[in-house]
Amino acid sequence: MAVKKVAFQGERGAYSEVAARELLGKTITPVPCDSFETLFDKVTHKRTELGMIPIENSLVGSIHKNYDLLLEHNLKVIGEVQLRVSHALIAPSGVSLKKISKVYSHPMALEQCRKFFKKHKTIAPISYYDTAGAVKMIAESGLTNSAAIASPYAAQIYKMHLLQRAIEDEKHNYTRFLLLSRTPLSFKGKAKTSIVFSLKNEPGALFKALSVFALRNIDLTKIESRPSRKQAWQYYFYVDFEGYIKDKLINHALDHLGEITHFIKILGSYPYRVDGL
Amino acid sequence: MAVKKVAFQGERGAYSEVAARELLGKTITPVPCDSFETLFDKVTHKRTELGMIPIENSLVGSIHKNYDLLLEHNLKVIGEVQLRVSHALIAPSGVSLKKISKVYSHPMALEQCRKFFKKHKTIAPISYYDTAGAVKMIAESGLTNSAAIASPYAAQIYKMHLLQRAIEDEKHNYTRFLLLSRTPLSFKGKAKTSIVFSLKNEPGALFKALSVFALRNIDLTKIESRPSRKQAWQYYFYVDFEGYIKDKLINHALDHLGEITHFIKILGSYPYRVDGL
Repeated sequence: MAVKKVAFQGERGAYSEVAARELLGKTITPVPCDSFETLFDKVTHKRTELGMIPIENSLVGSIHKNYDLLLEHNLKVIGEVQLRVSHALIAPSGVSLKKISKVYSHPMALEQCRKFFKKHKTIAPISYYDTAGAVKMIAESGLTNSAAIASPYAAQIYKMHLLQRAIEDEKHNYTRFLLLSRTPLSFKGKAKTSIVFSLKNEPGALFKALSVFALRNIDLTKIESRPSRKQAWQYYFYVDFEGYIKDKLINHALDHLGEITHFIKILGSYPYRVDGL
Repeated sequence: MAVKKVAFQGERGAYSEVAARELLGKTITPVPCDSFETLFDKVTHKRTELGMIPIENSLVGSIHKNYDLLLEHNLKVIGEVQLRVSHALIAPSGVSLKKISKVYSHPMALEQCRKFFKKHKTIAPISYYDTAGAVKMIAESGLTNSAAIASPYAAQIYKMHLLQRAIEDEKHNYTRFLLLSRTPLSFKGKAKTSIVFSLKNEPGALFKALSVFALRNIDLTKIESRPSRKQAWQYYFYVDFEGYIKDKLINHALDHLGEITHFIKILGSYPYRVDGL
């Protein structure tokens, strides 16, 4: 595969970069972005070919912000990958756990390592804008009383030392990521398609919408309702199903769905990975 | 209403306590708990009559951990309340913003106030186990260079000063809370019922399950799929719908649903608040 630029939110070594390497291999050119908005802009305006975003986590659910950005932009989902999130405690080499009085990381990562901080009461958890960014900051500042919580890969990037692996409380911590591109993917094999649609809050409206899939034996792999932020009594539905957008069957189903919903957006078709969240 | 003991997770002044006061009035006796497990235990073992838990948030989605605890325990949902989450910056009176170099709060609250920290670069965000707990700690320690982020009500509880109100980035930040009891509620008027069921991942299985409601014109207000953590290819569905568990129509629907699902748990019926998330 040719070397491809992949935008992701966070500094080098972020979990999204790990996800991109998992899906696309180690030859990618990672392009760190300070926000998800920047990431969407970079892909939209051809600064990178691809973007990798987290979309749902097994502990905290769907990342609504990224669904919102998918609705606002015209990028296509062309891949998915599920990553087990395992946090490492990372410090400069030669620094032992006893010397550590501060641990920097993204608030969500700190929150996921509560047991570690309960056990080490003299260590203060300090919020930082990014997991890998915290590793970078400690590497650059030469602090010897501080560590960071991030992916083991971040330690490798900044030539830091792994003090402890897998310090997260909950081992069943998976994040599902989506790969974004400006153009849809052509491929063969088992496919999954992601769509968002909205319905009026009327009895049976969702049932009618789902009949479109059920009558054609199309298997749903995700469904989630979310109240619209703009209009009361209106809901968005996030739905993933098995099948490829260019299949006749799927085409008919989506035409049919178009008759029932008053808004529908096809996010994309991509190879179905059986380990999907 | 008689004085009732209400358990909630967090210290006095937590958002869950604010939710309990909103729903039950100011005469409740709040019972702070160090974890959600403790809260469920206290209600189950008659240490309190009631418990108040957050169940979903408009930014981060459903709180799966509390759904898991609802599945493990036999408590009934008897009420719901939606609260707009608005964070205040809280310090001892006489301390000005200029003196503040550290701000303590729960990681999620710190994360929701990124713009504040971007604007005040000399102030370090420090993770603390609880929002209201951070206010309590500063009040007790007499720190004059520190503030906390929590509900305005927490400032009132610990006799602290509101330095700034509404410092959260995103104003559309709502949390939906559920009120738990050992015994179901008898009431009249518009009702909502919450259930959890599981289905095999077969095409059309969800459609069949939803037909139970659609064929009876029962309106769904929430649906969310979640992969089972215990069994591959099995899903849990969180469903809320309009109607009271003792209504004949709802009874028939749930009997019918029982034929289709291989697991179903009725979490409870409670008065339907139209402001529900």
